[in-house]
Parts: sequence; structure tokens; C-alpha cells
Amino acid sequence: MNESRMIEVKRNILADNDRAADVFREARKAEGTFFIDVMASPGAGKTTLLLALIEQLRAHATCGVIEADLESEVDALKIKEAGVSSVELNTRGVCHVEMGMVEKALAAFGELRFDYLFLENIGNLVCPAEFDTGAHVRVMLLSVPEGYDKVYKYPPMFAVVDALIVTKSDYLSLNPDFDMDALYRQARVLNPDLDIFVVSARTGQGIDEFAAWVRSCRETAMV
Amino acid sequence: MNESRMIEVKRNILADNDRAADVFREARKAEGTFFIDVMASPGAGKTTLLLALIEQLRAHATCGVIEADLESEVDALKIKEAGVSSVELNTRGVCHVEMGMVEKALAAFGELRFDYLFLENIGNLVCPAEFDTGAHVRVMLLSVPEGYDKVYKYPPMFAVVDALIVTKSDYLSLNPDFDMDALYRQARVLNPDLDIFVVSARTGQGIDEFAAWVRSCRETAMV
Repeated sequence: MNESRMIEVKRNILADNDRAADVFREARKAEGTFFIDVMASPGAGKTTLLLALIEQLRAHATCGVIEADLESEVDALKIKEAGVSSVELNTRGVCHVEMGMVEKALAAFGELRFDYLFLENIGNLVCPAEFDTGAHVRVMLLSVPEGYDKVYKYPPMFAVVDALIVTKSDYLSLNPDFDMDALYRQARVLNPDLDIFVVSARTGQGIDEFAAWVRSCRETAMV
Repeated sequence: MNESRMIEVKRNILADNDRAADVFREARKAEGTFFIDVMASPGAGKTTLLLALIEQLRAHATCGVIEADLESEVDALKIKEAGVSSVELNTRGVCHVEMGMVEKALAAFGELRFDYLFLENIGNLVCPAEFDTGAHVRVMLLSVPEGYDKVYKYPPMFAVVDALIVTKSDYLSLNPDFDMDALYRQARVLNPDLDIFVVSARTGQGIDEFAAWVRSCRETAMV
């Protein structure tokens, strides 16, 4: 085994991926598709938040979802049941999504194109942070039951995203130790421009504000 | 970039790691140390469960903890504050723990040896499943707020562990959709010998049973 060879191979893969991501991003912009990468731990509520967000957007815009999972199509079926176009992207055990996978997923939509295209990334707070998926904005979720003390433990993810969405805020009353001020402070030390939203798909709290932010990001990105 | 070269390098790394893990496992057995790898998503309650478990074990046995994180020493400090020996293992962004890291962490304890040594692995339900850490048993946690539908999404982890510990059971009343029967059934399709415990560190539910299982695994492994 040769450790430095491994690092070199990984560096080449990341550089190739970054180049492909830039090309993909420009191509989506040219056709009017705003592409959002949604990342989080398993069970943070990615699918549920996407459904609540799309419910707000779909009256005036078309939406599609790429559902990434190691295996299975549990989430893709949930999205389809809500009447939203979705493609299941099974990584066959790979811990993150790379550009080749995103390109194949888009091709699987055939002729369909959307105003908003979402990628529900693999449930993993570590590896997806390293791989540019060609999205115009990247967001991460952190659910209240996970605890507020995650910034210093998973800094790469907090550093690369445009927005942090604190989900399951209806659990705050059960988690008196959840220090929201500390979370905001620690996250913005690492990422000063980070936008932060506190939402609950169950009560509806914060979904309007998050949807308004998504719309405004699209307007900015499409200029 | 050469994809097949990448796969070959990874296969070599895993084979080297497996060999080192076997050596490490035998050496710990020879000195009477039972080694347990604890894996889960971020925020599933690994540190809290370890503290509750050690509280039960420490009256009659010595315990040590290797705390793995990408960065920071948040959890290692929590363990130290409880008066338990711990070593912080910072992987500097790496998504899993490998044998070289475990060996260094053990060396950092100096002359100290324990009846029970725990590894709190990186908060990641994907990558740690691939890397044997030299433990005698491997367990995973799944917290109730994450949802029950994780087996088909993260099959490698469910397949490699000896026990599944469903944590934060005090949240069950808030999660009427959590289908415990389906979780048991799906997990045992993938892993028929899996032992399953339902616990709450907050109420104490199930901690006795889990501690009894850990003691009994040690007796079996040390023969």
C-alpha cells in the first residue's frame, strides 16, 4: 500500500469532479434550472422538509428531486406519492454523490426540466461536504434531537454550506439543553455568511421564510 | 484518473487493515481487555449511552474510552468530567477510524489497561462499517427521532454489527409512526443473529439489559 499514491489519486478525483460540477452548474443555469444540494445526518428530516418546501413552490414553479441513497427507494417513493417527479440514485454503498452520478440521474428524467431541482444527498454529515455536486446552493439540516454541539465535530460540512436549517424545532421543549445561541455563534465563526433557519415541518414554523430564501437565491443565481 | 487503480488501492488498504485488526484483537484478549466499537449517526446518543453503561460496569471493572471525532474534544471532555479515562482521536477530517489510529490511541493511554475499552467511532452511519477496528464486538445505535426506516437505506452498517441499540426511547410517544416491529423485522432479514435493545439514557429503560449483554459478551470473548 502506498499512502501518498492514495492521496494523489483522491486529489485527481476531486479536481475532475470540480471541473465537471462547474460545467453542470452553467448548463443548468442556461436552461433555467436552479439546483440545490440538501445534506444532513440520517433522519434529520431531509425528505419531509423537501416535501414541505415543494408544497410552497409548486404553485408557480416546476420541481424535481434526485433521491440519493446507498440502496433502496424508500424516499423516492415518498416523493412520488406526493406527485413530485423524482429519480432514485443508488450509490451502491458509496458514501457521497459525485458528478457522474448526478449527470446520470438528470438523464433519467428524460426530456423533463424543472425550475427547481433538488438533490437529497446521502445521509452523512462527513463525506458529501468534499464533493461539489454542481448545485447553485448547498444547504445542510441539523435536527434538534441530534444536539447543538455539532459544529466543532463536523466542521467541513458547516464550512461549505450556504444555509443551515435547524429542523424538528417542535422538539425544543423536550431539549432544554439545546443551546441555539451557541449553535449560531459557533456556526458563524466557521462560516460568517451562513444563513440560518429554524423550522418544523410538523408545525409549519419557519417553512415560509426558508421557501422565500430559496426563491430569492434562484433569482440571484439565474441573472 | 484511473478508476480501477483507485479500487485496487482501496482493496489493499482494507486487506492491510483487516490483518492489523486481527492482531490487535488477539493482543487485547491476551491482556484481558474487551474492546467494543460503538457506531451511529451524529447525535444518536453515543456518548450519553457510554456514560450510562460505564456507570453500571465501573463498580467491578475498569473502563477506558477512545473518543473519535473529525476535530474537537467536546466528547472526550464529557467522558473525562465523569471521571473515566479517555483519549481523543482526531481523524482530521477522515470519515472513519482505521487500525493505525486505534493503535496510536491505545499507546496514548501509556501503561493504563482496562477490562473494557470502548471506541466511540465517528458519527457516520456509512463509512465506519467498512473498517474493522480490532474490536471484539461492534454495536450501532439508532435513535428514535431518526426514524425506523433506516435498514434498507444503510444496509452495510446493519449487516456488520452484533447489536442494535435503539436509543432515546422516551421519544416514542412523540413518534407514533415509529414502527418498531418493522425495524426488528427488516434488521433481522439482513442480520438474523442481531441482538436488539431499546434504551433511554434519560429514563434508564433498557440500560441494565444492555450492560448484562456487554458483560456476557466479554465472558464469551475472553475464553
